[in-house]
Amino acid sequence: MKLCRFGPAGQERPGMIDAAGGLRDLSALKARLTGADISPASLSALAALDATKLPLVQGNPRLGPPLEGIGKYICIGLNYSDHAAESNLPIPPEPIIFMKAVTAICGPDDDTVMPQGGSRLDWEVELAIVIGTIARNVTRESALDHVAGWCLANDISERAFQMQSPQWDKGKGCDTFGPLGPWLVTRDEIADVNDLDMWLDVNGERRQTGNTGTMIFDPATIVSYVSRFMTLMPGDVIATGTPPGVGMGMKPDPVWLKPGDVVELGIEGLGRQRQTIRDSQPG
Amino acid sequence: MKLCRFGPAGQERPGMIDAAGGLRDLSALKARLTGADISPASLSALAALDATKLPLVQGNPRLGPPLEGIGKYICIGLNYSDHAAESNLPIPPEPIIFMKAVTAICGPDDDTVMPQGGSRLDWEVELAIVIGTIARNVTRESALDHVAGWCLANDISERAFQMQSPQWDKGKGCDTFGPLGPWLVTRDEIADVNDLDMWLDVNGERRQTGNTGTMIFDPATIVSYVSRFMTLMPGDVIATGTPPGVGMGMKPDPVWLKPGDVVELGIEGLGRQRQTIRDSQPG
Repeated sequence: MKLCRFGPAGQERPGMIDAAGGLRDLSALKARLTGADISPASLSALAALDATKLPLVQGNPRLGPPLEGIGKYICIGLNYSDHAAESNLPIPPEPIIFMKAVTAICGPDDDTVMPQGGSRLDWEVELAIVIGTIARNVTRESALDHVAGWCLANDISERAFQMQSPQWDKGKGCDTFGPLGPWLVTRDEIADVNDLDMWLDVNGERRQTGNTGTMIFDPATIVSYVSRFMTLMPGDVIATGTPPGVGMGMKPDPVWLKPGDVVELGIEGLGRQRQTIRDSQPG
Repeated sequence: MKLCRFGPAGQERPGMIDAAGGLRDLSALKARLTGADISPASLSALAALDATKLPLVQGNPRLGPPLEGIGKYICIGLNYSDHAAESNLPIPPEPIIFMKAVTAICGPDDDTVMPQGGSRLDWEVELAIVIGTIARNVTRESALDHVAGWCLANDISERAFQMQSPQWDKGKGCDTFGPLGPWLVTRDEIADVNDLDMWLDVNGERRQTGNTGTMIFDPATIVSYVSRFMTLMPGDVIATGTPPGVGMGMKPDPVWLKPGDVVELGIEGLGRQRQTIRDSQPG
């Protein structure tokens, strides 16, 4: 099942993608799509619906992030060995946890706004885990039982801010730095989350090519690990790191995004995103 | 005005402290106390109430965090020069931003649970800023206009987790690591936020003594600074760093909290907290 939210920012309505790829309006059945709405019971109830009986949405409305009220946006750093190498950083012995401000979260195709004072805007295609049920100190074996599904994420960074202090959060949490979606894809739709191709283009040129199979710590390990340090709540999101090919790692010199650039990215089965970079408006 | 929430965890009701220090029940007027309820208009409406006409709460109910639905819990690291020195870290040229998981937030007197695998539990008395209106790229001069008030915070850390990776968030966000309260004290009640005495005792022995006047970056600077990197929303909390005297800095050897220890702390005008340390229950 593919769940989404469509409409103007702040006024999104829940939707579902039908077998033919059409967008169906769920709002008569569900006013909102929050962490509380993606429990196993809620997902079963939604899965039992005949999508073709729901109103077909005409046109191409904006998509919002597929979930409202995300409590925590957790990120795992340097989780692909090749990306650690291009960043000149050692392979971490344990997952590196940092956090993205929830105000950074936006729709998959929303513009990326360059923050004032920024100069080193960079991209990162990532698989994001969406938590479905409370997870606290869960084992690796049971970890995926707590996962509602997956979604595509661009973990956008302002490297100047990120590297200005010992802590990365400042350069990771700017407004619009967290495009999520287009969909929350439920777990049953993805046969093997550890074998999904992923890619990212800037202005039509391929920059990142990877596969979730080369993660150092796989999603089950990550959920189990993070749940030792903080309780994961329904609707929490964990972005799992990025494969090689970020702007910071380009040779002979790093390449940064600039206003007008177009970033497109996708992961097999999870859809695609497209962001246009623009300058911040003063004030 | 001093606002609070009282009752069992997850079922707290809004309350207000009257002139005599009594706890008054606000729940007939307000079902919840969230970021949306601390706008200047909402605070004015509350301030116009005659507290003595509200029901007096009998006994000593548990207090929860003074606000529900906190979206971001931001922290400023090493913001007192003496604390930076005791941590053997240089004085930062700009505020260091990191984040605490919102699931860490708890009531001011709730037990502190030692996470499994932890061994270096530490305390930090801090002044917390509570945002009242949206702040994005605000100047230092106008920054405090966006502040609803202040509260007392203990920024509890598991130093083993904090120092295990380059990123501190993992050791800062464990459940119960974010006692807030007893009250949200509105801005009008505090004559000079840059001159408040603060203290922390462990088992009755004074460990931290400080004053907000020795912050490197004061609250107005912090709100302005953070608002350049992320939009601050009503109800967001920023803890502003801790004065010297944490366990990690003790001589000749660090001192860590252990089960049964009692931590008490306070800031002038913002009340006091009391936590008992206990072991985690397995599972």
